[in-house]
Amino acid sequence: MTDKYPSKLLENAVEAIGSLPGVGSRSALRLALHLLRQPKENVHHFTSAINSLADEVRYCRECMMISDDDVCSICSDRTRDHSVICVVENVCDVMSIEATGQYRGTYHVLGGIISPINGIAPSDLTIRQLVERLQGGTISEVILALSGDVEGETTSFYIYRQIAPSGVKVSALARGLGFGDDLEYADSLTLGRSILNRQIFKP
Amino acid sequence: MTDKYPSKLLENAVEAIGSLPGVGSRSALRLALHLLRQPKENVHHFTSAINSLADEVRYCRECMMISDDDVCSICSDRTRDHSVICVVENVCDVMSIEATGQYRGTYHVLGGIISPINGIAPSDLTIRQLVERLQGGTISEVILALSGDVEGETTSFYIYRQIAPSGVKVSALARGLGFGDDLEYADSLTLGRSILNRQIFKP
Repeated sequence: MTDKYPSKLLENAVEAIGSLPGVGSRSALRLALHLLRQPKENVHHFTSAINSLADEVRYCRECMMISDDDVCSICSDRTRDHSVICVVENVCDVMSIEATGQYRGTYHVLGGIISPINGIAPSDLTIRQLVERLQGGTISEVILALSGDVEGETTSFYIYRQIAPSGVKVSALARGLGFGDDLEYADSLTLGRSILNRQIFKP
Repeated sequence: MTDKYPSKLLENAVEAIGSLPGVGSRSALRLALHLLRQPKENVHHFTSAINSLADEVRYCRECMMISDDDVCSICSDRTRDHSVICVVENVCDVMSIEATGQYRGTYHVLGGIISPINGIAPSDLTIRQLVERLQGGTISEVILALSGDVEGETTSFYIYRQIAPSGVKVSALARGLGFGDDLEYADSLTLGRSILNRQIFKP
C-alpha cells in the first residue's frame, strides 16, 4: 500500500468529512467507515438533508434569520414586542436567547461579524437591512447582543455609528461576573468592569 | 418560536449530522451552520464524496478490504508474503498495522466482530471466505489480530475452531505491557499475563 488509504473513494470521503471544523483525519475515517456500514438509503437520507439545507434555505425578509417561510415565526408572532430589535451574529445566538425565555422582542441576524482577518467586511453582513428597519419609525430600542471579543466590540461600534443618526435607543448586553462565578478566578478586565458597573443590591 | 429550530430544513440537517457517532446536537448545529456558510458547490462536493463512497465502494475479492479494484494493492503486490494472513476487524486496523512497517504478509478483513449484543453473527463476517482462502494449501500461518476485549476474544476463538481442521499455524498478537508503560499503572490482568508470557531478555 503506497498511499495512505486503500481506496480513492474512501480517501475522498475522508477528506470531505475532515474539512468540517473540529473533525480530524482520524475521526473523519471513523465517520466514513460508520457511514459505509449503514444501509445506502440512510446515507442518501443523510446527504440529501444537507443538500436540501444548502439548496432550499430561505431567510426571513424582516430579521434575516433562517426560516422556512418568507417571514419567520418570531417576526410573524403578534404577541411579541416589535418595537425592540436584538442584534445577534447568527441563528445559534437567537436559539440561545430564546432558550432563556427572558426576551419577547424581535431579532436581527447579522450573518457574521466584522473580521478583516477572515475577510468579512460590513457589507457582507445585514447591517443595511437593519438600518432600513429603523426607518419605519416604529423601533424604540436596538440591543447589541454580540460577543465581547475585539471583533464583536468592533462590530457593535460600527453598527452604533450607523444607527445613531436615527435617534433610537441603543443598548448592549450586561457584562460582569457570571452567576455562580468565583471571584478568585475572574479575569481582571471583567472584574474591573463589574465594579465600575455595579448595580443596586436587590435582596 | 414554538419549535427548537427556526426551520425544518435546518432541523433535518442537524438531525442527520447528529446521527453520526460522537456528534452531539450542539456540534451538529454548529456543523450545519458551517456548511450553510460555504458555497453551494462545496456542499455538493462534500455530499457527493460521501454518496460515491456508499454507492461505488468495492471490496478486494481476496482479503475483503475496501479497494478501487477487483484485487487490492496489497493482495496484488508480488513482493509481499502471500503465505501469511493477518485477520483484522476493519480497514482501520489494516492501516494501523501498515503504518508500523513491521508486516509484509497479507490481510483478511472480517468487516466486524462477533457481537450478540449488536446483532452481529459469525455469518455477517467474512469468515467463510477466510476458510476458503486456506483451502488452496498455500497458507502457512494465520495471525489473529483482533481486539483484546470479550468480543474480540470470542471472535478469535470462533475463527480458531473454524480453521483448526486445516492444520495451518494460528498465532495471535503478543499481549503485555506497552513500550514505555509504567508498571504502577498497568492493570493487573495485563501485568499478570506479561509475567506468565515473559520473554528472554535481549539487550
